[in-house]
Amino acid sequence: MSDTPKFAVIGGGSWATAIAKMLCSNVPEIAWYMRNNEAIEHLKLQKHNPNYLSSVEFDTNKLLLTSDINEAVAYADYVIFAIPSAFLSKELEKLTVSLEDKVIFSAIKGIVPETSLIVGEHFHDKYNISYDNIGVITGPCHAEEVALERLSYLTIACGNEKKAKIMGKNLNSHYIKTKTSDDIVGTEYAAMLKNIYAIAAGIAHGLGYGDNFQALLMSNAIREMKKFIRKVHKMKRNINNSAYLGDLLVTGYSVFSRNRMFGNMIGKGYTVKSAMMEMSMVAEGYYAAKSAYNLNKEFKAKTPIIDAVYSILYEGRDAKTVFSKLTEKLD
Amino acid sequence: MSDTPKFAVIGGGSWATAIAKMLCSNVPEIAWYMRNNEAIEHLKLQKHNPNYLSSVEFDTNKLLLTSDINEAVAYADYVIFAIPSAFLSKELEKLTVSLEDKVIFSAIKGIVPETSLIVGEHFHDKYNISYDNIGVITGPCHAEEVALERLSYLTIACGNEKKAKIMGKNLNSHYIKTKTSDDIVGTEYAAMLKNIYAIAAGIAHGLGYGDNFQALLMSNAIREMKKFIRKVHKMKRNINNSAYLGDLLVTGYSVFSRNRMFGNMIGKGYTVKSAMMEMSMVAEGYYAAKSAYNLNKEFKAKTPIIDAVYSILYEGRDAKTVFSKLTEKLD
Repeated sequence: MSDTPKFAVIGGGSWATAIAKMLCSNVPEIAWYMRNNEAIEHLKLQKHNPNYLSSVEFDTNKLLLTSDINEAVAYADYVIFAIPSAFLSKELEKLTVSLEDKVIFSAIKGIVPETSLIVGEHFHDKYNISYDNIGVITGPCHAEEVALERLSYLTIACGNEKKAKIMGKNLNSHYIKTKTSDDIVGTEYAAMLKNIYAIAAGIAHGLGYGDNFQALLMSNAIREMKKFIRKVHKMKRNINNSAYLGDLLVTGYSVFSRNRMFGNMIGKGYTVKSAMMEMSMVAEGYYAAKSAYNLNKEFKAKTPIIDAVYSILYEGRDAKTVFSKLTEKLD
Repeated sequence: MSDTPKFAVIGGGSWATAIAKMLCSNVPEIAWYMRNNEAIEHLKLQKHNPNYLSSVEFDTNKLLLTSDINEAVAYADYVIFAIPSAFLSKELEKLTVSLEDKVIFSAIKGIVPETSLIVGEHFHDKYNISYDNIGVITGPCHAEEVALERLSYLTIACGNEKKAKIMGKNLNSHYIKTKTSDDIVGTEYAAMLKNIYAIAAGIAHGLGYGDNFQALLMSNAIREMKKFIRKVHKMKRNINNSAYLGDLLVTGYSVFSRNRMFGNMIGKGYTVKSAMMEMSMVAEGYYAAKSAYNLNKEFKAKTPIIDAVYSILYEGRDAKTVFSKLTEKLD
C-alpha cells in the first residue's frame, strides 16, 4: 500500500457525507457506499446528497458511488465506517470481500448492540483485525459545520501512528485540522460515553434544570468519563484533550444532538418508546447506556450519571425522581 | 463570634441581589449596602431591586438597607463583597470601620485594577487580613437562575474550613447546594481567568467560528487555566471540579455573559473602546486579561488564549488575524 491509499466511505448519513467531502478535497477519487439507491441516483445527477448535508456540492467525477458494500471495500485500502452502530453487524454480514490488509477506521462513536463492544473492539474480536489496522476518527465535530466549512479539529487515533497520519493528511483542509493519538480505545470509549452524557443533559433540560446545572453536570461527566475510561484501558491521557472533553462539550451543549434531543423528550415526559418513535432513528446513547452500565458491573467505577440514565431508559424509573437523587451525588 | 453570625452584602448588582436572596432564606436579618439611594427606596417600598433580578421579592423586614458602607460593615461578622472589581478600591476607601475580626468573602471574580491582585490577595496584602478570614464564593452560577430558583451549586473556599462551612450553610436552600474547598487562591484565579476565556469565546463567535471550534477552545482553555493556576499556587486540585471547569463552562457557553458579549462585539468588528461604550459596564475579563498577561511574564506558563485576548484588547491587534494564528496553537 502506498502513501496515497484508496479510501472508501461506508454510510450515507451526515457524518459519512462530511467525511466524503473532506476526502474529496485531497484525493482524486473515493468509493462511497450507501444502501439507498435513490440517494445515489440523486447524488449522481444533482451532485448533492438529498438527505444529509444537502448543501454540500460534490464533484461527481471523484465519486465511485455504489450500493454494493463489497464493491466499495474491494476498491479501498482504507475503509471508513460511518453508519449507526445498530446497523454495523448487518452491513458486515453482507461482506464477501476480506477485510484482511484493509485499514479500518471507525467514525461511528457507538456500541455494537449485538456484541456490546465499541467498534474497534468489534473489528478486532470478531474479524481478527490487528489494532495496527484499526483507527478512530473523532471530534469535536458536528457534520453540519463541516458542510459550512467552519474550522473543526479531528483526532485520528490508530495503533499505527503512520496510518493515523496518512488518514489525517487526507482529511485536512483549510477548515479541518487533525491530530493523531495512540489512544484508540480511550478515544472511542469517550465518543461512546459522551452520548450518554448528552442524553443526561437533555433529560436535565427537559426537566427544567438550567445552565448552572448543565455546567455542573458536564463538570461531573468529564470526571466520571475519566474514571470509566481509566478502568477500561489505563494509560497516560489528558482527559481534557479535545477528543475527550471537547467531544463531550460539542455534543452535550448542542441543541442539534440526537442524543440530547432524545433525553430532552424523556425529561419532558415522553416514554422511552414514544421518544424513540418520535425520532426516526434510535440515539446512539441509548445502546451506549446499556453497554456502559453492564460493562461497569465489572469495572465498578463510580458512575452516577450513567446509572441514572440507565435506570430511566431500561428500568422504567421516573426521570424526575432519578434526577432529584442524582443531584445529591454531584458536586 | 457565634455559629450564627451576622451577614452584610456589599453591592447592588445582580450577583449581590442573588446572594441577599440566598441569605434571606436562612437568617432573620442581613445588612445590605448599595450606593444607589433610589434603589434602596424602591426596595423598601416595592420589595424588589428595581435594577437587577427585579423578579425577586424580598421580605423587607429582613433587610437592613443602607447606603453607608460603614453601617453595613459595622453590623456584620461576615462581609460579602459583590461589586465590580473596578469599584472595590474606591468603596474600601470609604471605610472607617475596621475590617479586623471580620470574615471577608469575595463574590467578585475579578482583578482589582489598581493592584493587579485578586480580591483575596488584595484584602490580605492591603488590609492585612489573614487568609483564615478570607473566603471566596464561586459558581458555576448565573445570578439570573438563582432568581428563578433553578438548582445551582456553589463552592465556598476559605483558609478556615469551619468558616467556609458556616458561610455555605447560610447560603444553602432547596435550590442551592454548597461545597467547601481550601483552594482559596485557585478558585479565585479560576473565576478571574474564565472571564478572559469567555471573551475569547465571544470573539470567536463574533468572527464566525462555530460550535466545533467553541468546544475545542474550551478544551484548550481548561488546560491553559490548569497550567496557569499551578504556577500561581501549586497544590493538589482537580481542575475539572465545578469551581474551575463548571465555572468556565457556564460563562463560556452563556450568551448572557457580559464578557462573552464584549468579546462578541470585538469579533464583529467593534473597536475595544466602542465595545466598552456600547456596554454600560466594563467586562471583568478586560482587566483580568491585562493582569493575567503581566503576571504570566513571571510565571511563563504557555497561555496562547490569554496572549491572544491581550494582544487584541491592549495592543490593538486585529482580532481576525490574531485568532487565525491562535488556531494553529490549539489542538
